[in-house]
Amino acid sequence: MSITLYTYFRSSAAFRVRIALALKGLSHDDIYVHLRKNEQMSKEFRDVNPQGFVPALIHNGHSISQSLAIIEYLDEVFPDPPLLPVDPLSRARVRQLACVVACDIHPINNLRVRRFLLHEFGKSENEVNGFMRHWIEEGFDALESLVRDDPQTGRFCHGDQPTLADIFLIPQIANARALDIDMERWPVLHGIEEAAYEMAAFVTAQPKSQADAE
Amino acid sequence: MSITLYTYFRSSAAFRVRIALALKGLSHDDIYVHLRKNEQMSKEFRDVNPQGFVPALIHNGHSISQSLAIIEYLDEVFPDPPLLPVDPLSRARVRQLACVVACDIHPINNLRVRRFLLHEFGKSENEVNGFMRHWIEEGFDALESLVRDDPQTGRFCHGDQPTLADIFLIPQIANARALDIDMERWPVLHGIEEAAYEMAAFVTAQPKSQADAE
Repeated sequence: MSITLYTYFRSSAAFRVRIALALKGLSHDDIYVHLRKNEQMSKEFRDVNPQGFVPALIHNGHSISQSLAIIEYLDEVFPDPPLLPVDPLSRARVRQLACVVACDIHPINNLRVRRFLLHEFGKSENEVNGFMRHWIEEGFDALESLVRDDPQTGRFCHGDQPTLADIFLIPQIANARALDIDMERWPVLHGIEEAAYEMAAFVTAQPKSQADAE
Repeated sequence: MSITLYTYFRSSAAFRVRIALALKGLSHDDIYVHLRKNEQMSKEFRDVNPQGFVPALIHNGHSISQSLAIIEYLDEVFPDPPLLPVDPLSRARVRQLACVVACDIHPINNLRVRRFLLHEFGKSENEVNGFMRHWIEEGFDALESLVRDDPQTGRFCHGDQPTLADIFLIPQIANARALDIDMERWPVLHGIEEAAYEMAAFVTAQPKSQADAE
């Protein structure tokens, strides 16, 4: 059993996979891909992931990319502790919460979109940061409403143990903080963030704990 | 057993769920939410989905949103025919392909981003269409490479029957065609599109087959 993770400390999608690996106690060799230096464009890395994105995970010689696919895979192959509840409706709720981040917040705000807006559309840093804050705030408003109004929410998004939903939420909150967004506006999400960083898995997975952190 | 789908003919995320329901032979009552008239902002619909997005699916009184979460749910509750393969590595491959569309193409190109670029950033229709084409082409280049170079690809993205990957790909191709993108550049994806429209499920699920089509 060997796991290799292609990662970058700033990548919030890689942060998700690092949390999942840590929660499951899976050791891994890390290969650092410096996105701001465009190392993801190298032929060597394109052979691992033709899309040129981190994270990519190699398990016993097989390459998987896309953080959601990687984490669902890890949960199927290493089921303890589970990252999804058992019953289909609860699983749907957890996946729905994860998808708000995975599909509706993060993709609009990542490095390549940022670069397009700066260089192709000639927008200023300030304008681009405003664009990013807009989607984060809109997404967090929806998430706060979904967790606040549901008795299934506990210390974490679904019950008292972390699930796929928290694995997606916490890195997005870290991105929000990097943009000086005040989490007080979303008290339930903020409480989940506090619960998460009481666990070693979230602490060791965070960007500043990585060997490639600057 | 009752299924209600909140849908809009133009929504490519709703198109995905319509395909999944059709493949599984599940009948459903449709409620049309006209996105361009902003019906998704109504209090009535916000009570169904606080995020204000279609699709939302009600099954036996329980509401689920986010197309990926809905389709995984349908596949767990109505497993025949399966939309995911059996072994974890193949499941990861199918989810990875679906996520390229779900996370890296579609979110950057939907109505609310389009509106932001037009109205907040003052971009022209032409510029915004160029922005959309850029992400579709980049994503399709990655997808084409992933399916072309893998012997697991068959008539569909994974084998000879449609999976989650095709359910996400086909609506994105429809969006590409609406932007006059020529699919000849991606011969494998183009072949999968042709295979899909030989099946009634894809034909009945497409935008122009819907009762709310204009």
